[in-house]
Amino acid sequence: MITSIGSEEQLIAFARALPAFSETHAGMARSRQAQLTKPPGSLGRLEEVAIWLCGWQAAERPKLDKVLTLLFAGNHGVAARGVSAYPSEVTAQMVANFENGGAAVNQLCKLAGSELRVTPLSLDKPTADFTTQPAMSMEEALEAFNAGFTAVTSADLLIIGEMGIGNTTPSAALACALAGGDIDQWVGRGTGVDEKGIRIKKDVVHAGITLHKAHCKTTLELLRRLGGREHAAMAGAIARARQMRIPVVLDGYVVTSAAATLTLTAPDFLAHCIAGHSSAEPGHIRLLKHLKMDPLLNLNMRLGEGSGALVAVSVVRAAVATHNGMATFAEASVTAA
Amino acid sequence: MITSIGSEEQLIAFARALPAFSETHAGMARSRQAQLTKPPGSLGRLEEVAIWLCGWQAAERPKLDKVLTLLFAGNHGVAARGVSAYPSEVTAQMVANFENGGAAVNQLCKLAGSELRVTPLSLDKPTADFTTQPAMSMEEALEAFNAGFTAVTSADLLIIGEMGIGNTTPSAALACALAGGDIDQWVGRGTGVDEKGIRIKKDVVHAGITLHKAHCKTTLELLRRLGGREHAAMAGAIARARQMRIPVVLDGYVVTSAAATLTLTAPDFLAHCIAGHSSAEPGHIRLLKHLKMDPLLNLNMRLGEGSGALVAVSVVRAAVATHNGMATFAEASVTAA
Repeated sequence: MITSIGSEEQLIAFARALPAFSETHAGMARSRQAQLTKPPGSLGRLEEVAIWLCGWQAAERPKLDKVLTLLFAGNHGVAARGVSAYPSEVTAQMVANFENGGAAVNQLCKLAGSELRVTPLSLDKPTADFTTQPAMSMEEALEAFNAGFTAVTSADLLIIGEMGIGNTTPSAALACALAGGDIDQWVGRGTGVDEKGIRIKKDVVHAGITLHKAHCKTTLELLRRLGGREHAAMAGAIARARQMRIPVVLDGYVVTSAAATLTLTAPDFLAHCIAGHSSAEPGHIRLLKHLKMDPLLNLNMRLGEGSGALVAVSVVRAAVATHNGMATFAEASVTAA
Repeated sequence: MITSIGSEEQLIAFARALPAFSETHAGMARSRQAQLTKPPGSLGRLEEVAIWLCGWQAAERPKLDKVLTLLFAGNHGVAARGVSAYPSEVTAQMVANFENGGAAVNQLCKLAGSELRVTPLSLDKPTADFTTQPAMSMEEALEAFNAGFTAVTSADLLIIGEMGIGNTTPSAALACALAGGDIDQWVGRGTGVDEKGIRIKKDVVHAGITLHKAHCKTTLELLRRLGGREHAAMAGAIARARQMRIPVVLDGYVVTSAAATLTLTAPDFLAHCIAGHSSAEPGHIRLLKHLKMDPLLNLNMRLGEGSGALVAVSVVRAAVATHNGMATFAEASVTAA
C-alpha cells in the first residue's frame, strides 16, 4: 500500500488503483432495510446513509465504533490583503483553543463520540500571495498533501475540518478554477467581512484566477497555485481515506473545495464522501451542485472546524442505530404491507 | 395549576394564562453567544436553538438532562375505507414492537438520550368514520386530550410522536380545515399507498371537509370531528408542555397537524415548539409554511413515531453543547474581530 504521494503522476496511478463501492454489501443492506418494521423507504436518507456505509466499509452491518476528526490549520499570504475580519494570528490562537478544549469542534467531537486530532501546518510560514505567484512550490504542496495522507489512521468514519484565517478566499479560487462561471458568485462573506472586504476578496480571486487558471489542470498543480496548506492536507487525507475504505463526511466550503480538487485526478474520487451540511456561503451550495452532492443538513452554519460535519455525524449514527437495532417484520410479528 | 381540560371554554381560559418566552434569559443567551470563540452568528441555527431553549426554560444556560418522548397511538374509522397500505391491527402490533424495543423510535430514543413512554388510546375502539359523523364525541375527545395533558411530566425537552394506521388521512383533514386551499394538495402517500389508495384518501378528506368544515372553528371541535385520539392527546401534551415551560420538538405531518389545532385557541400557542424536520409528505411542508415554522432537518423521512424529531434532538444537543461548553474570546485569549 502506497504511504505517500511524490508526484502528480503517482497520484494518478494511485487513483487508478482505488477500491470501489461494494455493491454486494450494499445489496445486503438494502435487503435488510426492506425487512425492518417500517414502511419501505420511510427512513429516507437514514436508509441511504446506512447502505452507503455498508458499501464503503464492505460490511454486512455498518459500524461507527471509531470516528476520527482530522483538523488541519494553515495561514495564507492573501490574508495580508484584508480578505478576513480577523488577523492571521487568530489561526494559532484557535489551534491553542482546540488544544485546550474550548472551541466549537471540541464540544461537537465529544457529542459525536469522535476523536479529534489537530495538525497545524507551518503556521509561522504563510503561503505566498497567489495574486503574484503560486501559493506554494510543488515541494511544499506535496509536503502538506502527505501530512494529510499520513494523518489518517484506521477508523469507521472520518470527519475533515479546517481552520485558517483568510481561507475562504483560496477556497473560492479553487472552486472557481474547477467549476468555472462568474468569479464573483464564488466569493462570500467568510467569517463576516464587510462590503469593502468582499470587494477585496473578489479582486484577489479575480487576480488569482487570471494568473493561474491556464495551469490548473491537475490536482496538485491547482492546490499549489491557489490553495493553502490545509487544502492540500485535506485532499491528501480524503485520498488516503478512499484507499482505506473509510467513509468521509465533508464539512463546509473550505473542505469541499479541497476535496473537489481530487476530481481532476478521477471524476469519481469522492464517491466515499458525503456532504455533511450546506453552509451559509453561497459558493458552497454552488460547489455541492457542481459535485452532485446532496448535503445532509442545512443549518446556516459557517464556522468551519468540521463543525457542520460533526453535527451530521448524529444523522449517520441514527442511520446505523436504526439499521442495526430495529426488529424485522418477522422478528416482531408485525404484518408487512 | 390546571391539571385537566373540561371544555372548550376552559381551554380558552387556560391559553390566556400561558407563560411567555423569557426575553431576559434569551438576552443573556444572546450576549454569551457573542462572546464565544467563533465569528458572530457562525453557528447559525445552533445559536437560535440555544437562545430559544433559554427563553422557554427561563434559564441562563440551557439544559437537556431530561429528554422525554411521548408517543400516542390510536385507531381510525376511516382506515376501513382503504386509506393505508397496512391493516389497522398493525397499530397494536407496533405498540408491542415499541414495548419490546424493536422499532425505529427505540433506537432513536437511545441515541438521543430520551426516555420513551408509549400511550395506546383505546386501540380496540377506532374513532368513527368522519365522512358520515364526527370521529369522536366531545367526551371522547376530551378524554384523549387529557390523556396527553397528564402524560407530560417534568422535562427539559419534550418530543411528540405517534402511531396509527390511517392517521395521515385525519391529519390531512385537520390541516385542510385549518389552512384551507385545494383539498387534494393536503393528501400524500402516507406509509406508501398506491394510486387507488390516493384517490380514496382524497375522496375521504373531501367528504370530511364538506361535512364538518363549517363547525371546525375551535380546537376541540375540530379535533373531535376530524382528528383521531392520538391527535387530541398530542394537542393536550403540547398544551401542557407550554404551561410547564417545556420546549417541544414536533415530528412530521401527523404531529404538526395535531399541534396546529391549538392555534385556533391562541395564534401563538406553539411558540414553545420547533419543527424537528420536514417530512416527505407534501402536506407537511405546506402546513409548516402556514405555521411559519422552519424545520431543523429535511431527511426525506416519513415514518412518524417521533423519528424525525428524535434525529433533530442531536441538533438541539449540539446547540446546548456549544453554548455551554465553548470558551469565550477572553477565556481563550483569542483576538475578537
